[in-house]
Amino acid sequence: MARTADDETIELGFTGVGARGAGLARRCLTMEDVEIRAVCDVQDRRLDAVSERVTDEGRPAPNTYHDHQEMLAAEDLDGVVIATSWRFHLPMAIQALEAGVWPGLDVGPASSVEECWSLVDAAEASDARCMLLENGCFGRDRLSVLNMVRHGLFGEIVHVECGYCHDLRGRLNDVSGTSREDSARELSGGRYFRGIQHEKRNCDLYPTHGVGPLATCLDINRGNRFLSLTSTASKARGLADWGERHLPEDHPSRGLDWRHGDIITTVIRCANGETMTVTHDVSLPRPDNSKRFMVRGTRGMWQEEQDAVYIDEQSPDHEWEDFADYRDEYEHSLWDAYQETGVRGGHGGADYLVLRGFVEAIKQDVRPPIDVYDTAAWRAVSPLSEESIAQGSEPVAFPDFTNGRWMTDEPIFDPPAAADDDRVSFDSLLEGE
Amino acid sequence: MARTADDETIELGFTGVGARGAGLARRCLTMEDVEIRAVCDVQDRRLDAVSERVTDEGRPAPNTYHDHQEMLAAEDLDGVVIATSWRFHLPMAIQALEAGVWPGLDVGPASSVEECWSLVDAAEASDARCMLLENGCFGRDRLSVLNMVRHGLFGEIVHVECGYCHDLRGRLNDVSGTSREDSARELSGGRYFRGIQHEKRNCDLYPTHGVGPLATCLDINRGNRFLSLTSTASKARGLADWGERHLPEDHPSRGLDWRHGDIITTVIRCANGETMTVTHDVSLPRPDNSKRFMVRGTRGMWQEEQDAVYIDEQSPDHEWEDFADYRDEYEHSLWDAYQETGVRGGHGGADYLVLRGFVEAIKQDVRPPIDVYDTAAWRAVSPLSEESIAQGSEPVAFPDFTNGRWMTDEPIFDPPAAADDDRVSFDSLLEGE
Repeated sequence: MARTADDETIELGFTGVGARGAGLARRCLTMEDVEIRAVCDVQDRRLDAVSERVTDEGRPAPNTYHDHQEMLAAEDLDGVVIATSWRFHLPMAIQALEAGVWPGLDVGPASSVEECWSLVDAAEASDARCMLLENGCFGRDRLSVLNMVRHGLFGEIVHVECGYCHDLRGRLNDVSGTSREDSARELSGGRYFRGIQHEKRNCDLYPTHGVGPLATCLDINRGNRFLSLTSTASKARGLADWGERHLPEDHPSRGLDWRHGDIITTVIRCANGETMTVTHDVSLPRPDNSKRFMVRGTRGMWQEEQDAVYIDEQSPDHEWEDFADYRDEYEHSLWDAYQETGVRGGHGGADYLVLRGFVEAIKQDVRPPIDVYDTAAWRAVSPLSEESIAQGSEPVAFPDFTNGRWMTDEPIFDPPAAADDDRVSFDSLLEGE
Repeated sequence: MARTADDETIELGFTGVGARGAGLARRCLTMEDVEIRAVCDVQDRRLDAVSERVTDEGRPAPNTYHDHQEMLAAEDLDGVVIATSWRFHLPMAIQALEAGVWPGLDVGPASSVEECWSLVDAAEASDARCMLLENGCFGRDRLSVLNMVRHGLFGEIVHVECGYCHDLRGRLNDVSGTSREDSARELSGGRYFRGIQHEKRNCDLYPTHGVGPLATCLDINRGNRFLSLTSTASKARGLADWGERHLPEDHPSRGLDWRHGDIITTVIRCANGETMTVTHDVSLPRPDNSKRFMVRGTRGMWQEEQDAVYIDEQSPDHEWEDFADYRDEYEHSLWDAYQETGVRGGHGGADYLVLRGFVEAIKQDVRPPIDVYDTAAWRAVSPLSEESIAQGSEPVAFPDFTNGRWMTDEPIFDPPAAADDDRVSFDSLLEGE
């Protein structure tokens, strides 16, 4: 399954083509250098829908599978996008790596720290490489902020905050109403898989949307690393309270003993002295979605909820300035090019870019922008926070998944120097499409 | 020094009449039922200024002292307002209690948990009672929010947040420019006392403005209590960075090894399952001051930085509503009366009210609205966070300063039922003035 430099087309498989996986597949249909060679799902309905979409675009029909391993064995894939229920992500990525196929993982928690180590071990033993498809890292605003940080606009970074704040009480209580919920329930034997996680686990279940974009700003795993965290859970009241008001008496979500605290507050310490506060907030009423991003440095700050920037001794009258002005000034060259060629849908255009990062890394056979060490460290927040909460908020150490290479590794996410042979230049992401 | 029921005038002393103490004394000059009998400070200049202000109002000149103990022994005071440097607050309050005089303490940290216990012990052995003069609890918005919580507007409270966010880099670096800074420096032998605390201690140094108003909402020490906290400090960069740019080479604050992290994040667990996040943020650039208040319940939320309220299935179009509308609807009766008779200056009128709470508790000889157990628990956040930070964010248990009475005690802060003989009715606060 090794590619040669002459290959011009990347052959991808997709495992898990529910709403999320099918959406990612659609993003690839406009890429001339990508072929959707195979799709895998337990439901024929989904396989049919994706296949039809592929052929509607004049592309060859993909081969279809019910089993991930079987697909890996039968096909000569370059990479596979995995967008199943969370708990299958890492095991399936390990299987792909063992088959020499690059896994591109949708976001979610790890089930355990051991699982993260197994992923790292598998990647280090494989010719293929692993990428977490964290679209949050490729958003327009986030890449502008990364530019601001790299240019020193905020001075030395001291503290950052983020969160995943989104009222999901209906979805977690398994209430239908959208195709996404229906299909997700079917896959999980009658329950939406995220609801099951909220019933069984008490931890930050969805850390990477916040942690990822800040980890790139803090050069985590490249000169810096996560040292330890504490995590504290409030009581769990939101889902039951909602269910009592909205669900029929015989609904399977009524009377569940939800373990997952409504608000999970995690504080991470970094090797270079920065702190990061991470909030998980999905089961209480709130009107809007927020990532609660904040970046604090010796010379300034960005606060997403105010949509504002403040720069010491520069912002007029010591007042907030509109973020948009700074976003434009520090616009990332990738987004300049993207806007010229046309932003393609899916989470504000970020889905397309994260997939381009995956495809380009495969084509160039270099380290992907978000590599296996990032995948392990970011997703490990979940089981580490689980352990801290179970132990009364005890601090829990992060493993160093890089085995010391964080001290000397250079950034691979949008490398600040000219791209070298081992890293993906962001300016190349749209060239091959 | 015991009062009789016939006494109509409360005789107060003031120890520490810098900017803060003198301001509190001025608030008392309009109260007909209060006499400023004595003032104490190490600086004659300040004693003269306060005395002049008192006589300017046609009141008898207070006796003046350089020593707190001497004043307590010589005078027959009902109460003493203590607004010295932080580290003298609790020792001086203990001296007052031992003399049978009610101490009213300005806000600040405790030096140690043992000091908090000593204060509780002294209060329990005394006929006098101790009150923390936390003006934040008496602000118009805060009392409206307390009303909202008590009326169940937000459902069951699950999580709250607060902070003290205020760019104090100049003041902490001992830069003059205002009379407040000059006088504070003189008192501390050339250094502003808060700067010294930032040099020597690494903890949340100023918790009560945030913790206090939320503790009243959570019924802390009355059916609920703080169980434990974790605290995490970022690196300390802000004060040195500012100093290098603004201070002459030979300034005493240049080159200091500041111990106090720029951002201190504390997470408190409560006996009834709520969590409270507390941020201390005074040495990095930011344009505005914020307490970062947030109250989250099963039916709604208040977020101060958005100046907004959201109520589940009530707020139109699932959108934020202006806080002001709710504030008016849930206006506290005390603030109705206060606005009718005229709001008097000092932190939005809250200074006057907190002093009225102190004076009325003395007059009625009942438990003050913020009693010694509150004082101990709220101020103990500082040494407990210090201990947690020093131990790598280990969870640290709160002592139960009430020795179990929190399980049965009824709220004394704005008691929700009709006032009984042992508690101050807020409706009585403006009656005696």
